[in-house]
Amino acid sequence: MQRFTARAVVVGDRAGTVVPQAVVDVADGEITWVGPAAEAPPAGDADVVELPGVLMPGLVNAHSHAPMVLFRGQGEGLPLDRWLSEVMWPREARLTGDDVEAAMTAASAELLRNGVTTSVEMYFHPERIAAAVDRTGARAVIATPLLPLPGMPPLREQLDRAVDLAASAPRDGRVEYGLGPHAAYTLPLPLLADAARAAREHGLLLHLHVAETATEGQDLLALHGLSVPALLAAHDVLGGRVLAAHCVHLDDGDLELWREYDVAVAHCPASNAKLASGVAPLRDMLDRGIRVGLGTDGPASNDALDLLADARLAAQLARLASGDATALSAAEALWLATGAAADALGRPDLGQLEAGRRADLVHVDTRDLAFVPIGDATDVLTHLVWSAGGRFVRDVWVGGRQVVADGACTTVDAGALRADVAERAGRLARGAGPGGSPTRDAPVS
Amino acid sequence: MQRFTARAVVVGDRAGTVVPQAVVDVADGEITWVGPAAEAPPAGDADVVELPGVLMPGLVNAHSHAPMVLFRGQGEGLPLDRWLSEVMWPREARLTGDDVEAAMTAASAELLRNGVTTSVEMYFHPERIAAAVDRTGARAVIATPLLPLPGMPPLREQLDRAVDLAASAPRDGRVEYGLGPHAAYTLPLPLLADAARAAREHGLLLHLHVAETATEGQDLLALHGLSVPALLAAHDVLGGRVLAAHCVHLDDGDLELWREYDVAVAHCPASNAKLASGVAPLRDMLDRGIRVGLGTDGPASNDALDLLADARLAAQLARLASGDATALSAAEALWLATGAAADALGRPDLGQLEAGRRADLVHVDTRDLAFVPIGDATDVLTHLVWSAGGRFVRDVWVGGRQVVADGACTTVDAGALRADVAERAGRLARGAGPGGSPTRDAPVS
Repeated sequence: MQRFTARAVVVGDRAGTVVPQAVVDVADGEITWVGPAAEAPPAGDADVVELPGVLMPGLVNAHSHAPMVLFRGQGEGLPLDRWLSEVMWPREARLTGDDVEAAMTAASAELLRNGVTTSVEMYFHPERIAAAVDRTGARAVIATPLLPLPGMPPLREQLDRAVDLAASAPRDGRVEYGLGPHAAYTLPLPLLADAARAAREHGLLLHLHVAETATEGQDLLALHGLSVPALLAAHDVLGGRVLAAHCVHLDDGDLELWREYDVAVAHCPASNAKLASGVAPLRDMLDRGIRVGLGTDGPASNDALDLLADARLAAQLARLASGDATALSAAEALWLATGAAADALGRPDLGQLEAGRRADLVHVDTRDLAFVPIGDATDVLTHLVWSAGGRFVRDVWVGGRQVVADGACTTVDAGALRADVAERAGRLARGAGPGGSPTRDAPVS
Repeated sequence: MQRFTARAVVVGDRAGTVVPQAVVDVADGEITWVGPAAEAPPAGDADVVELPGVLMPGLVNAHSHAPMVLFRGQGEGLPLDRWLSEVMWPREARLTGDDVEAAMTAASAELLRNGVTTSVEMYFHPERIAAAVDRTGARAVIATPLLPLPGMPPLREQLDRAVDLAASAPRDGRVEYGLGPHAAYTLPLPLLADAARAAREHGLLLHLHVAETATEGQDLLALHGLSVPALLAAHDVLGGRVLAAHCVHLDDGDLELWREYDVAVAHCPASNAKLASGVAPLRDMLDRGIRVGLGTDGPASNDALDLLADARLAAQLARLASGDATALSAAEALWLATGAAADALGRPDLGQLEAGRRADLVHVDTRDLAFVPIGDATDVLTHLVWSAGGRFVRDVWVGGRQVVADGACTTVDAGALRADVAERAGRLARGAGPGGSPTRDAPVS
């Protein structure tokens, strides 16, 4: 058994519970007890880890294409259409599985260092993403992308393979596979329906993009006379573990469908801001009882991979959108990156520091000027959201195993990764791909 | 002479100039030469400082009440009126000069550590703010607050004293005093006019709040039939070095007055978001040629004191406000925190790495996964804004003197400051002030 003692434990629930002078007990990778040190059971022969700062749950990133660290910052300042067609797509067309694994390893180390222990990843070469995460010690829910791109197998074959891949993962491992049909505007509706049926049958996460931009549903509306959510409902795509990324441009009727079918939302405020897509109606979603988790999106559109910083942005934008400084509290913002995000993924074993959940723990060093003053325990939570960001994450454990120590990922060699990914990024930018000419013309992101 | 060599130098100009493999020469606290290493003059017997990362100008914070670190995070989640009346004002009423000096010392160390070498400070006990900044080695333009509060001298006397204080500062020192008449809605117009006249006569910065909220000008409009900018113009307040904080709610006519009178704006996106005040028309201001600098505002409304993070937020909000992903580039965002901010203060000796300006230098460590990939020099600038934040600031020099090394302020004892400020914050929160009962009922922020 391991026993962690900390100045305070931030539980990661909606109420923003903070337990001062707390203990977290861990056995076999699971939390067995959380509470005030004064009430803790006998430590026995536990390994005691005394932490000077605050423990919070490992953050859960509900939408990411993390291997796109390969393209971080590239095409900055271009309008969206040119950014896609001149910068992203030509590079993605040259991607190899080795590129994806190297980039995901680097991105995973960066995510862990920022306190993100689980991420939902939708990107090419899903089995290489799994290999990377296996190496760093993080968790991932990998939504195998389904996309009608030249050079990829027929969609039906993609779906069959994705379902087989999902079945191949060990049931209690750190990697879970789901299905990632890209979006209603890029895929035939029957394929979406089949993917949804397969996801329900096997209990898989169905992860897709919905209403990221104001224009992307217009063709479908003209063709079918229905909004994208209504179209998805009419084609039996909703129901089960459905996680819809973005959902910026939904009206009242769409949101009611989300509530009715218990569709979860991956809210990506930083990406939606950088690409000028808009601000999702977060407060409205929460008030309707829609499950929402926070996502970074890929680092080509949200360069920082810092989910705690995105929690702050979510609160800033919710307040601006409503003109109400109480529209989203620090407690709710942090919950969106922890307990609420786990709930959005349909993963009740993650996201909160609570007996029975996985021992994914993040130690934040609060002995810094940025955490002054701490008058009472709730100030800790406030400072985590408004003042800290991932910068003050010192130590991280996933399933009880330490993967970050003193601010650095201990499972991989960051220096070697940096050089490797930089070299690969340079090759992709120059177009000197090992596989010959470009074969793809659309992105997964 | 000192010679700094770096992977790249970010100049801090509007165009976003980046010089790869660059040299910055410094003598007597001033920059004497900047350019590519290959073209540098002979080093002679200079002390050579070889930096592995990027050099950028010391950031310039155009609006701050930094001693409010005493109140950081307190009252989180309350609506604005209760936040002011129940949390901020009672605490401020108990403030002593010792509190302000201790808090400013801590805040200044934190600002320096985030790469901010100059800040415009408007807060009580200006001479104690100067003492704090003298200790840390930072620069400040201290706008002595003029406010009609119980317990403070009559306004005319406040103004006379503030002008005397400004005259007392050494001409070439790190501290410059200006005048800080709080706002048109809190002060008599004749006093504002007198302050403006005094500022013009002595070449002082006149710093005031304008149009932070949608409602604050309504009484004046009802009374005078003029917007606040029009009222200020009509009462001869504009002209000279006028720096108006916030300017969220200005219409076309107001902006034209700003242009006509060359009024500069301190844009505070993080504070305006947290308090749900709104989004200032930044792009419109820049297109009209209005001078704009970025400000953190006080840490009670923008807890992080991280101006580089605020540059990212400025770009995010400008893009969302316009629906245009090209509305504000990374280069412009960084310029708002460097060259443009210095220009907004009327301080052409600051804000850019250019021969003849002060040697305020910030070294950012780019050997991190967050800076991968760097394909060419402009990627560096992009990563500074979109990926970095103050977190990767390693070393800072002010006037050629090193004040931050390896991420920590070297001129003060951060641990002792932390404990001291926390104790003072606790006392102010409990109301056990050393000076007896509260005497103030309005804030300076």
